[in-house]
Formats: sequence, structure tokens, C-alpha cells
Amino acid sequence: MSNIKQLEIKQISGGVIVPKGFKASGVACNIKQSGNKDIAVVVSEKVAIAAAVFTTNKMAAAPVHLSKNHIANGKVQAVVINSGNANACTGRQGYRDAEKMAEVAGLAIGINPKDIIISSTGIIGVPMPIQKVEEGIKMAVGRLPKGTGTDAAEAIMTTDTFSKEYAIAFELDSQEVRIGGMAKGSGMIAPNMATMLAVITTDALVTLGALDSSLKAAVNKSFNSITVDGDTSTNDMVVLLANGESGARVTTGNAGVFQEALNQVCMELAKLIVRDGEGATKFIEVEVIGAVGDTDAKKAAMAIANSNLVKTAFFGQDANWGRIVAAVGYSSADIDPARVDIYFGGEKLVENGCVVAHDAAKVNEAIKSNDIEVKVDLKLGDGSARMWTCDLSYDYVRINAEYHT
Amino acid sequence: MSNIKQLEIKQISGGVIVPKGFKASGVACNIKQSGNKDIAVVVSEKVAIAAAVFTTNKMAAAPVHLSKNHIANGKVQAVVINSGNANACTGRQGYRDAEKMAEVAGLAIGINPKDIIISSTGIIGVPMPIQKVEEGIKMAVGRLPKGTGTDAAEAIMTTDTFSKEYAIAFELDSQEVRIGGMAKGSGMIAPNMATMLAVITTDALVTLGALDSSLKAAVNKSFNSITVDGDTSTNDMVVLLANGESGARVTTGNAGVFQEALNQVCMELAKLIVRDGEGATKFIEVEVIGAVGDTDAKKAAMAIANSNLVKTAFFGQDANWGRIVAAVGYSSADIDPARVDIYFGGEKLVENGCVVAHDAAKVNEAIKSNDIEVKVDLKLGDGSARMWTCDLSYDYVRINAEYHT
Repeated sequence: MSNIKQLEIKQISGGVIVPKGFKASGVACNIKQSGNKDIAVVVSEKVAIAAAVFTTNKMAAAPVHLSKNHIANGKVQAVVINSGNANACTGRQGYRDAEKMAEVAGLAIGINPKDIIISSTGIIGVPMPIQKVEEGIKMAVGRLPKGTGTDAAEAIMTTDTFSKEYAIAFELDSQEVRIGGMAKGSGMIAPNMATMLAVITTDALVTLGALDSSLKAAVNKSFNSITVDGDTSTNDMVVLLANGESGARVTTGNAGVFQEALNQVCMELAKLIVRDGEGATKFIEVEVIGAVGDTDAKKAAMAIANSNLVKTAFFGQDANWGRIVAAVGYSSADIDPARVDIYFGGEKLVENGCVVAHDAAKVNEAIKSNDIEVKVDLKLGDGSARMWTCDLSYDYVRINAEYHT
Repeated sequence: MSNIKQLEIKQISGGVIVPKGFKASGVACNIKQSGNKDIAVVVSEKVAIAAAVFTTNKMAAAPVHLSKNHIANGKVQAVVINSGNANACTGRQGYRDAEKMAEVAGLAIGINPKDIIISSTGIIGVPMPIQKVEEGIKMAVGRLPKGTGTDAAEAIMTTDTFSKEYAIAFELDSQEVRIGGMAKGSGMIAPNMATMLAVITTDALVTLGALDSSLKAAVNKSFNSITVDGDTSTNDMVVLLANGESGARVTTGNAGVFQEALNQVCMELAKLIVRDGEGATKFIEVEVIGAVGDTDAKKAAMAIANSNLVKTAFFGQDANWGRIVAAVGYSSADIDPARVDIYFGGEKLVENGCVVAHDAAKVNEAIKSNDIEVKVDLKLGDGSARMWTCDLSYDYVRINAEYHT
């Protein structure tokens, strides 16, 4: 554990091409009517060890099924993503289109199509404009020599208002290792994957087993701890490619360091998704402590973070602890109503289930800030959890009433 | 079963005092700053057999605990409700205040305080203005001779925009029986009780066991099949009083008739709550058929009815079946993606998980109407369920950002 405490992590600007041996690009091929970028390609110089977490939605889109097959052997060399069309509910033709995307990309890059992950995000139920997509993939591959991670990050956006990248450098036994990533939101964000899209790259040398368990652990603390509206989508995944180009090896001795670093990248990307939640004006951190166990803590935190009544209260800058109490009460977490404490921005408002004397100015300041911290102490045990969410605003309604996914 | 088919149910204007032997009134005692009515009293001439369903929220308010104790013997003669203050998260004083309300009402009416149900709805965490409430109860009891059911229905409103009453008459073995009721919504409406408030009266002669099981069955089909925002509250209950004044007895032979009639009253009140959902512009019926079982059907229906993305799409008059597919996919119901059919207003849009040729004008007409019917056929079995919900509008956000519950 001493390694972790000493861990120095340096943030580096950029995303997926910050680690050695990765290239990326993003181009527009008119899947989107807006003319914005809609094809992203991320390629590793050599075949990478790869792990992924996919949507749990039973209506999973065609590219999800294809990518599960392609990653089954733990090897991936490229990720190809289009935005503007989810290739979901498109039947057998949808699967053939996803296969076609891998085939065209494989030919253009000069690699095995089975080493390519395909992902799509956008409108559901519309056949893929496959000719445009094919042209787009060829164009994007052609741009790889001078492409940027930001181009790719922009090309995966849907209702996102800004592109999301994060990258870091740190040391594993005195050798520099880098991890970089990009992600998109921003509706249909809810725990248990099925939520969003993220591509993470690293030049660490990792075994498949270690990579897989590290990714699961990191996703649980990050992408599965955010919620915008409780909805989970038919597409979307988190994929992690480790090409080993740094020469630095993840061992049982330093695995904790790697995990810590991966957690940070995933958590920062997850927080960017929440900050860009549809119509969000507030970034809210919900912390539950003192639960019987971590699972209970997460249940309570999720009930608070998913409550429309809580989220509209935050939009209204109202320190409405009553709605928080109600959400804790209907979560299936074990609670003792006569013990619950609630804090806003560090100030205790509720003690043992009842409101107590507090500094109203401090609470007011906390609730008017753009970043709000709510803490609930159930005072029953050692379980804790942290979730991030945003408020529910007029703009959430506007965006989702107007945008036809 | 032939009884049920022949059942003639006649709607009668009014609510809780339509059945014989009930009186009601509603007055203002300034718990609400608006000066609107905030104390309701419903009294039976004689002690009634009574059943109730209470909130499942673990932070249940003081009056819920008191009323559970008072109804334990299955006998109730009066229901006293205040709006404007929920008497929730008010600690021991809250329980004493609820006891005081029963005591004052018992004295004023001249009945045993233990035969009185107390309910409160409104802001959480503020001590009851008990002197005002005591005065209000005395005033309301004084008004009973000329009070109306509507007065009572108005006095239990919070953010409701209209009062909710419904009453019917029907025959049990050639004797007329009546059932009447009142309810309030309109936020924090979600399945599993903990949701709203309803008082139902009948002059049928029923045993406690039959009354209890009839109420549970009716609530399951009505109040537990509606959702406005998925939140459930700390207060709120459904209570049913049967005083036997009609002389008509519910027997094993005609119990189906009584159940049918009770279901109708509960369903109509439940639908009124949805129609008055905060900011609602659309009334949406979600029907799921062909599920493996009724439980699965309800899971799928609830996922659709609770989805913010689905609800904003309805507000935007967008027949966004993709969001419905996604919601079905993340519900825990068993589904086969390649079998799902979806209908809007009777027109099939999706067949076997893919969009099919359809009459766009008919779908457009359906989605622009104020009452929308969505049907999902999972084509796996005989399970079915029906839920009612409303859309998610700018006004939902406005009301809940501004109203401090």
C-alpha cells in the first residue's frame, strides 16, 4: 500500500494518443445532418491486450454483439466508432453493417478485422447509411498520421456540448507509463454500464487477467457511479487497450499503482460526463457513509442521485433535505430513521432524522455553488459510497423533448 | 363470474359522503400560507370496519406510525387529515402532535381517539403548528353538518391543481351499495404506495378479512400502477372504511362484484392523480402483453413509465420508440430482442425489434393527442400489466424547483 500513497500522477493534456504507440483521428462523413465529425478511429501500432465492459441492456445494438465476439480472445488493435446512428434495432442488416465497418477498417489500416472493436451511438432504429460510413472510415484512416485524440473525441459526441479527454503519466518501478482516454455522454447515463462510451489506452504491459479485473474495478468506481437520468442505453461500452509499448510491466507488486492510476482516468472522464449531463447547471457529489455495507451505501446514494425531486430542488437552489430523507427512505438500504444525519457542503442540517441548528448562510452558499456536496451518515456501520450526478433543469426537458435519439 | 359481466355501475357525483352514514368537511386554519383549506375530517355515524395500505418508505412520518397503531384492531370511525405540513422528520414531538390531533378530534366528535386515523401531507421537517391544527380540527368538526366531500377533497391538496373525487352505486344481491373516495397527488407518485393519499368509504357490510384483501387487490391495480416521477414519500396511505349502513352484505358469492366496483373507484382516483401529475400535459397508458408472467410485464411497463427520456419524448410529441425499446431492454423483464413489437395508438411501429412500415399519420395523430396509448408485446407468454403515467414537462421542473416540500 505504500506505493499508492507515494504515487505521483501527472496530468497530461490530450487523450487516447498520449500513451506511446497509439494514433487517432476523427472526420465528418455526413451521418450527422449537422456536418459535425462522426467517425473516430483509434489504432495501436501493434495488437494490444484488451478488456471491455458492455451495456447490460437486453436490446444491445449490433456493434455491441460484434465487438463482444471480436474481443473474446483479449486482443484488439483498433477501435472504430461512428456517432449519429446507433445501429440499434436494425436486425440482421445491422449486424452485417457492423461487420462491414470492421472489414473496411481492417483493409484500410492493414490489420485483421477481427482485431477491431466497432461502436455506434446516436439514433435508434434507422438503418446505417453504410456507404457514407465506409467512406468515412477510409477517410479517417487516411488522416491517422496527422490526426489528434481531440478529433476522435469530437467525432464520438452526440448531445455532448464539449469533447471529453483525460490523460496521465506515472511510474511503475521507475519506468514511465501513460494512460489516456476519451468519453461521450450525455443522456441515458446511469449505473451498470449501458450508459456511455469510453476508449482508454495505455502503454503499460499487462496480462489479460489483470487488465480485465482492473477495468472492472475502475468502472465500478467511476462510470457505474454516475447518473444523469437513470436511463441506460442499447449501445455503449468502455474498452481499454494496453499495447505494452512503454516496456513497463504491471506486476502483482505494483498492480495497486496501476489500479489507482486507471481509477483516476475513469473517474475524471466519468465526472466530465456528469458535468455535461443534459441541461446540467450543477455538479453534485452524493456521499453516503455509515451504511451497513458498501452495497447498502450505494443503494442509498443512487436513490438520492436518481431522484427527480432531489435533482429539481438542486436546480432550484433549494437545500431540500426532506426529499433526500425521502429518497434514503425508499431506497432498499437498511436505515434507522432516528439516526440519519445529512450535511450540505460540510454543514450538518439534519441529526438523528430531525433538522438541527445550523449555519444557514453556509448551507445557502453550498447550495448556490456549481459544485455541491451532500453527505448522508446512516450511523449503522462502515459501508460507504460516492456517486456523482447533476441537477434536472428546463434544458434537460428541452434537449430530450427535441432531440430524436 | 356471471355477476361481474352483468355488473351495472353507476357513477354518482361527489366523493366520500356519497355512501350512507358518512359526513365530511374541510376548512382553512392557516397551516398553508395561501389561506387555502388545510384540514379535512371524514366521519362515519358508527364505527366502521377499516383497512389501509401505508407507505413503504422507511422514513415514514409520525401520523403513519400512529395510524398503523389505531387501525390494528380493524376499526375506524373518523379520518383527520391536514395538508401543508407532513409531520415527517419531526422526532418524538411529531408523534405527540399526531396523538394530540386524534385526542382533539375525538373530543370534538365525541368518539374514541383510538378510532381515528391521522394523516398529514406537505413540507417535511418542520414542527407542526399544533395550536392552529387543533383549532382547525374543532372548526372542521363544527362544520360537519353542512360540510361536503368536496370541501374535504380540497383540504387535502398540496401541489394538486384540482380536487379529486369519485363515487359509484351498484347492487349486491339487489340491494344498493355505494363506494366513494377522494385522493390527492401529485408529485412523489410512484408504485408501492408511499405515494399519495386516498380515503375511500362504503356503506357495504364487509368482514375485516374480505375488506383487507379487497383493498390490497384494488390498490395493486390502481395506485400501485401509476407513476409520476418514481419518487415515493414519507407519508401517505389509502384507507377504506366500510360502515355497513346499506345493509348489503359482501359474501363469498358476490365478493367479485364488490371487488370490481372497488377497483373502479381506485383506478379512477389513480388516473385523476396522473392527469394532475406535476406539469403533466399528456396522460399515458402503457400496456405490456406477452410477458413471461404478470410480474415481468409490470417490470417492463414500469421501466417505460418511469423513464425520463420516454417522458420528455412524449412531452415533445415524438413517437420515440427507440427510448421505449431501451427502457424495456434495461428493465429486468425477460425479453427476446428479436420478438418485441411496439404499438402507438393501436398502430404497429416496431415488429420483432425492428421498425416496420406503418401509417405515419395515424402514429402522429396518436402522439399529438392528450391521451396516449403505448402497447408493447413481448411475445413470450401470457403475462400482462397496465400502468399510467404522464409526460415530463418544463412545468414539472418549475414546480419542483420552486416548491419547497
